[in-house]
Amino acid sequence: MRATVYHGPGDVRVDNVPDPKIQQPTDAIVRITHACICGSDLWFYRGLDDWKSGWRTGHEWMGIVEEVGSEVRNIKKGDRVLAPFAFSDGMCEFCGQGLQTSCVQGGFWGGVNDGGQAEAVRAPLADGTLVVVPPAVSGDNAMLKAILPVTDVMSTGHHAAVSAGVQPGGIAAVIGDGAVGLCGVLAAKRLGAERIIIVGRHENRLEIARHFGATDVVTSKDEQAVGEVMEMTKGGAPSVLECVGTESSLGTAISIARPGGAIGFVGVPHGSETINLSRMFFSNVALRGGVAPARHYIPELLADVVAGKLDPSPVLDHTVNLDGVPSGYAAMDNREAIKVMVQL
Amino acid sequence: MRATVYHGPGDVRVDNVPDPKIQQPTDAIVRITHACICGSDLWFYRGLDDWKSGWRTGHEWMGIVEEVGSEVRNIKKGDRVLAPFAFSDGMCEFCGQGLQTSCVQGGFWGGVNDGGQAEAVRAPLADGTLVVVPPAVSGDNAMLKAILPVTDVMSTGHHAAVSAGVQPGGIAAVIGDGAVGLCGVLAAKRLGAERIIIVGRHENRLEIARHFGATDVVTSKDEQAVGEVMEMTKGGAPSVLECVGTESSLGTAISIARPGGAIGFVGVPHGSETINLSRMFFSNVALRGGVAPARHYIPELLADVVAGKLDPSPVLDHTVNLDGVPSGYAAMDNREAIKVMVQL
Repeated sequence: MRATVYHGPGDVRVDNVPDPKIQQPTDAIVRITHACICGSDLWFYRGLDDWKSGWRTGHEWMGIVEEVGSEVRNIKKGDRVLAPFAFSDGMCEFCGQGLQTSCVQGGFWGGVNDGGQAEAVRAPLADGTLVVVPPAVSGDNAMLKAILPVTDVMSTGHHAAVSAGVQPGGIAAVIGDGAVGLCGVLAAKRLGAERIIIVGRHENRLEIARHFGATDVVTSKDEQAVGEVMEMTKGGAPSVLECVGTESSLGTAISIARPGGAIGFVGVPHGSETINLSRMFFSNVALRGGVAPARHYIPELLADVVAGKLDPSPVLDHTVNLDGVPSGYAAMDNREAIKVMVQL
Repeated sequence: MRATVYHGPGDVRVDNVPDPKIQQPTDAIVRITHACICGSDLWFYRGLDDWKSGWRTGHEWMGIVEEVGSEVRNIKKGDRVLAPFAFSDGMCEFCGQGLQTSCVQGGFWGGVNDGGQAEAVRAPLADGTLVVVPPAVSGDNAMLKAILPVTDVMSTGHHAAVSAGVQPGGIAAVIGDGAVGLCGVLAAKRLGAERIIIVGRHENRLEIARHFGATDVVTSKDEQAVGEVMEMTKGGAPSVLECVGTESSLGTAISIARPGGAIGFVGVPHGSETINLSRMFFSNVALRGGVAPARHYIPELLADVVAGKLDPSPVLDHTVNLDGVPSGYAAMDNREAIKVMVQL
């Protein structure tokens, strides 16, 4: 089969690779119909993560089950399934707590595991990981595009909102206008926030933010952005969604949080960072969140998408086929696309 | 009257100062009967905080009301009262949320305000700040000694436990065997933790920790302490109480937190610090807490002390009179005392 393979910074290729086969009785083989390219893929694409040549790519995907191992009970051949960006057994202490990203048997797609930017994948721990898409919508292309982001960015934005303690009628500030930040706006709106301030700088993305429910837009950065948010909230936002993952954006998040408030941080940090602990301490600002347990959130988010109550599809503003994956990476790297859908 | 005054690093003196007078109709004048010296006082004593010569000292105190301003309603002359380490109006948005340390009119004792290591204080915002000690115990010296720590260290240890999400039957790890760490052990026990691990290094303090409910003691530090706690908890403690306030102790806290767990941090940080955000992110470890809203916790903690269910007095292992305050600072600075009580 054909699959996207990392060869080095700026160099991903669609190569011929061996067909995936059942290796464990808990595996499934899934033929991919849709995948995405993620902002976090740009880290290795830009040579900023320690990736090895030959590793597979793509952690957001949906497809049709071709085969299941002898111990798989909940998934059967022919099902349309989607996968959270991490796989998990569904049975351990952490899965039981809804923290599937810390599953003791789990892992992430891509790297030494199969990736979703490919014709097919071997999916380990199929019962604990995969979620069946209701057959009624399996042929509805617009619906499938709306469902696809719950594999990662919609669940991640939701995790930011939950971790930031967004309340009905409350005020939320979202830092970042990438796909996750935009989904954070949508999630805050869904949880009932009355005022949603987005801090971002790209007009086309801020337009989507407004469509998703942002009531205020701040286009300045750092200290000036802090001043504007402090002014418009008269002392800070009780819920701050940090959806970028740089020291500077986290610094902004800490500065604009209201005393007693919480920051939900979902932008991937890279190692140790210096943060203003004194501000957090004297204002009792909490820092919560991390890698989103998408598998925990998918059932409720998928149900809302299928019911027509939630539609994150506008973040997918660019579509390629499998051959177009390398150009899709380039488009995201050059900020010509917010997020790329791969349609097979 | 006489009051302790900061003159420079290592130099506090009991000086003659003007008697306090009612300045605002919401003030009270309180004659001090008991005060403490706090571990956090050592920061300015050691020249590590930006303190000015002439500033007053002491933020933990109890006494008898001598006079109240015309608008004071809840406190009257002759009442025995205790004060949280911060004063607050009891009426603003933050006081209403139980976050009195962020009161819009509030402040801390000492510095340019009166301090408790003195014969008397002017207490601003008396109604919002002071708590009346039940008259029935006002003459019981052992009880008063047990009550005194709720002004700060017992409330702070409790805040660490609450912020760390200590659960009945749960596991808590406490970093630090100072007065706050010891009170953190007591608070975790009070909240029902079944296993309480203390990380500390002073045998006399660890003895108190065991008396307060610690089930396990770790006397190594940094990486070795991390390894031991990870081993004994098989993967980390769901609740970690950080009661020191150094970069190294917070690093240990982050390393020993179980995925999905929380760190309650109450050790005072000094500015910006570098923390392992990646570990927090990939394990969804939350960092919560800060300066304790003691005023919020005092009613329930005081009730438990008065009922004989809570006794933090063993942390007060050294007593001086007002003249002895400078020697009390020296004793704490030299670690000859855990915490000093000043009895007038």
